[in-house]
Amino acid sequence: MTRETGRRRARVGAGARAGAEMGAGRGSGGLKQLPWRVPENPFRPLEVLTPEQIEMISETAFRILEEIGMDFLHPEALDILGKAGAVVTPGSQRVRLDRGLVKQALASAPAEFTLHARNPDHDLPIGGRRIVFGTVGSAPNASDTDNGRRPGNYQDYLNFLRLAQSFNIVHYIGGYPVEPVDLHPATRHLDCVRDMLCLTDKVPYAYSLGRRRILDALELVRLGHGMTEAEMATRPSLFTVVNTSSPLRLDGPMIEGIIEMAKRNQVVVITPFTLSGAMSPATVAGALAQQHAEAMAGLALTQLVNPGAPVIYGGFTSNVDMKTGAPAFGTPEYTRAAIAGGQLARHLGVPYRSSNANAANCVDTQAAYESQMSIWGAVMGHANFLLHGLGWLEGGLCASFEKFVLDAEMLQMMSETLTPLEVTEESIGLDAVREVGPGGHFFGCAHTLARYDSAFYNPILSDWRNFESWEEAGSETATQRANRLFKKVLADYTPPPLDPAIREALDDFVARRTREGGAEAA
Amino acid sequence: MTRETGRRRARVGAGARAGAEMGAGRGSGGLKQLPWRVPENPFRPLEVLTPEQIEMISETAFRILEEIGMDFLHPEALDILGKAGAVVTPGSQRVRLDRGLVKQALASAPAEFTLHARNPDHDLPIGGRRIVFGTVGSAPNASDTDNGRRPGNYQDYLNFLRLAQSFNIVHYIGGYPVEPVDLHPATRHLDCVRDMLCLTDKVPYAYSLGRRRILDALELVRLGHGMTEAEMATRPSLFTVVNTSSPLRLDGPMIEGIIEMAKRNQVVVITPFTLSGAMSPATVAGALAQQHAEAMAGLALTQLVNPGAPVIYGGFTSNVDMKTGAPAFGTPEYTRAAIAGGQLARHLGVPYRSSNANAANCVDTQAAYESQMSIWGAVMGHANFLLHGLGWLEGGLCASFEKFVLDAEMLQMMSETLTPLEVTEESIGLDAVREVGPGGHFFGCAHTLARYDSAFYNPILSDWRNFESWEEAGSETATQRANRLFKKVLADYTPPPLDPAIREALDDFVARRTREGGAEAA
Repeated sequence: MTRETGRRRARVGAGARAGAEMGAGRGSGGLKQLPWRVPENPFRPLEVLTPEQIEMISETAFRILEEIGMDFLHPEALDILGKAGAVVTPGSQRVRLDRGLVKQALASAPAEFTLHARNPDHDLPIGGRRIVFGTVGSAPNASDTDNGRRPGNYQDYLNFLRLAQSFNIVHYIGGYPVEPVDLHPATRHLDCVRDMLCLTDKVPYAYSLGRRRILDALELVRLGHGMTEAEMATRPSLFTVVNTSSPLRLDGPMIEGIIEMAKRNQVVVITPFTLSGAMSPATVAGALAQQHAEAMAGLALTQLVNPGAPVIYGGFTSNVDMKTGAPAFGTPEYTRAAIAGGQLARHLGVPYRSSNANAANCVDTQAAYESQMSIWGAVMGHANFLLHGLGWLEGGLCASFEKFVLDAEMLQMMSETLTPLEVTEESIGLDAVREVGPGGHFFGCAHTLARYDSAFYNPILSDWRNFESWEEAGSETATQRANRLFKKVLADYTPPPLDPAIREALDDFVARRTREGGAEAA
Repeated sequence: MTRETGRRRARVGAGARAGAEMGAGRGSGGLKQLPWRVPENPFRPLEVLTPEQIEMISETAFRILEEIGMDFLHPEALDILGKAGAVVTPGSQRVRLDRGLVKQALASAPAEFTLHARNPDHDLPIGGRRIVFGTVGSAPNASDTDNGRRPGNYQDYLNFLRLAQSFNIVHYIGGYPVEPVDLHPATRHLDCVRDMLCLTDKVPYAYSLGRRRILDALELVRLGHGMTEAEMATRPSLFTVVNTSSPLRLDGPMIEGIIEMAKRNQVVVITPFTLSGAMSPATVAGALAQQHAEAMAGLALTQLVNPGAPVIYGGFTSNVDMKTGAPAFGTPEYTRAAIAGGQLARHLGVPYRSSNANAANCVDTQAAYESQMSIWGAVMGHANFLLHGLGWLEGGLCASFEKFVLDAEMLQMMSETLTPLEVTEESIGLDAVREVGPGGHFFGCAHTLARYDSAFYNPILSDWRNFESWEEAGSETATQRANRLFKKVLADYTPPPLDPAIREALDDFVARRTREGGAEAA
């Protein structure tokens, strides 16, 4: 055939259709989606760093901790680190950490563990070749194309949780998808964690905003699982992200999070916020060295609190626009840093966290290609834990409902891409080729009909109709389809089962702690 | 820091700005773009097939050629193949090819070669770790968002050539970007190839639509380079894509293309059109086996015509929507097939061609994410030759001006992602970290200022402004920005230098052959 215009030939033997991005079938609320599964990465990790370069970055990171040191803004951390042999400059919060101390502390960090959900079907194996996807967290604004952009609010918060429960590709809740600023800051965490446990049965998140909030979240999760404290200590069921306040500083509320979570064997993700050219040197190499130093320091603290506590190494290195200081995501620098971050985490033997980030201001092609660059960087770097996987827009300043659906499609596609090909005599179908022969077609042959339903990935958002059918149906963009789809999924949402006694215990706890003033009563 | 909302902190120390996707600077027409370069892939090729699976696919492909055979719809091919020892079924066009014959023929195919352009700065090294990007080819329609979709025409054809010349990321012309149906079919090739040689100085394309057209194109390229025929025989300067008419058939006009091009040492890309579920079995494994069989047959023919003739193995396997027969691109099946195709081409020791394909009907997020899946599949599979790299929409039925710009941005980003990181004492900047120290920022430090201009990739399309600035400036989507950008680039276009004597020789040849009736005079 002369020209590679796919549709010309393929439409031979196939009729038109009315679009299939929705349909009856498996999954939540009539959404025809992939079943729940935790993808395993079959590929060899990509390497942007040579072994010598890893060594150089590692060496520089050690020298940063030894020669420059890091500020730990909490007396308990200074105490723990000092007792372990670190040098605390008297009258300051500056701590210099010897590489021997760091290496010894990190030696106890587990390479793999299970992060338990209220619904055991949603337990997450963390580490190795597995990758799990979480929602956007912490966006101060929400948006959809019907109502535009608005400050984060409780109703949007609840709706994002409903989407998170409905899409099988969401493995965990990556924070408050949007910040419900209409809830009082002192009690917001009580309502929000309770809602994560009631509207979803997936792994929840707690913010390390001081001891009181973390303890409340831990208690809610304990109640939600119906566990004793002793049981919980053997069962990681909650995670928190601790961002270093780069360069080289760990804030007090974050340190309290590290201490209380690690003590109880819950998961701490240490993520330096090394934006190259702003909070770290204006080179990817320099940003990675600083990231590695800060991550090692935070991870070491978790292990000094409780050797063996489950941790994750977070990589978030990106770059700024040098002319304006505006942060960028999904750039070539970001993507290589995401791949390199995996190498550095594996160098330490701990699971690796990356993100699905972009800096677009609306759900346009930029949002899609920057996100794809982020996702591919994460997957090729063998990230185990993809945060901000669904819904993130504007460099994290907005959670978008349409972006959530777009990301669900892109992550489903990635999950399917990670599925090994079946190459067997049966699948390869030599007899089918023989049956059809030169010049025929495979539409009706037995080998094809046997695979009619399951042969290929069925998209939830992509529209493969020809132009004429698509135009006649209204020329909808994928973002317009995403808008229809998220509303349909919300309309079809049903909450997961929850023992009424547990529900009552959760509500009672929230009511009591609210009466006590929440976090302000600490 | 509590939250990963990138922009909050980074804007400290940085002012607002008015957008920077355009600017004075290097490159064509005021477009600030990456300089011309041929990217080298620093990564290990990704492997979706195990060695045993490659063996099984290879074995099946040989059995297809030996047991089922392939139809060659031209007596010359039957003659060449028969003389080489293939079994031609008497009274038919069916040829069965023994694996010994195929292997022996393929042994002479070069692993690497140079594809010469009229401007030697634009010569293309093909093979090894290099990848080059070409425009969309053969779209029957063109579109932009001002004027919508229309049948291909000469004016649009010329404008796409101007874009191809203007963007440094375009390495070659991948066919007629859009089919100029307002030019007479008998003489269209004369005008079009002449225009490729005059409006651009990059490697051109000729269609294998019968002997007469290919000979005309060869002569135009010879004149365009000012070469003798003997010189041309040592200097690959033109390429053609030969699609098999899958399953298992090679059409007559294509065969004439193979023969005339190979005879003159010009480049033939053999690309089976194995759409899984339609023209090949409904499994990726089956489609790959058939692709491999058809590719080997076509490649063997080139080598029987002229041992050592430069060739490229084309992979174009994708899948259809089983419910409708609609072809899909950039799917999980497509991406894995693109990666596997690289393994199969390397198994034969020849360069590999893939595509930047998608099935979207407008330049929306689907166009971006399907294209990204295609590009990443190609790059991870170590494609050497990316066809349809810029402008392809609607499964190839439309060439879009805005998509062209979107692809230029995405391919520039990929090119930059393939650039190895610089990890040196100098770049890593330990002294900068020391100078800034805990809690500081890197905006003003010497290490940063020394890298102010060159530290990071500068996008041509992405807008990194914050939401408020972006909204105030009109809330443009990336597609709207692409629209402005392609018009600006067209307005700034200047043709590359061309010796007036060569220009005259080209025009004279076109005039003479037009008087003779063009292809109809054969």
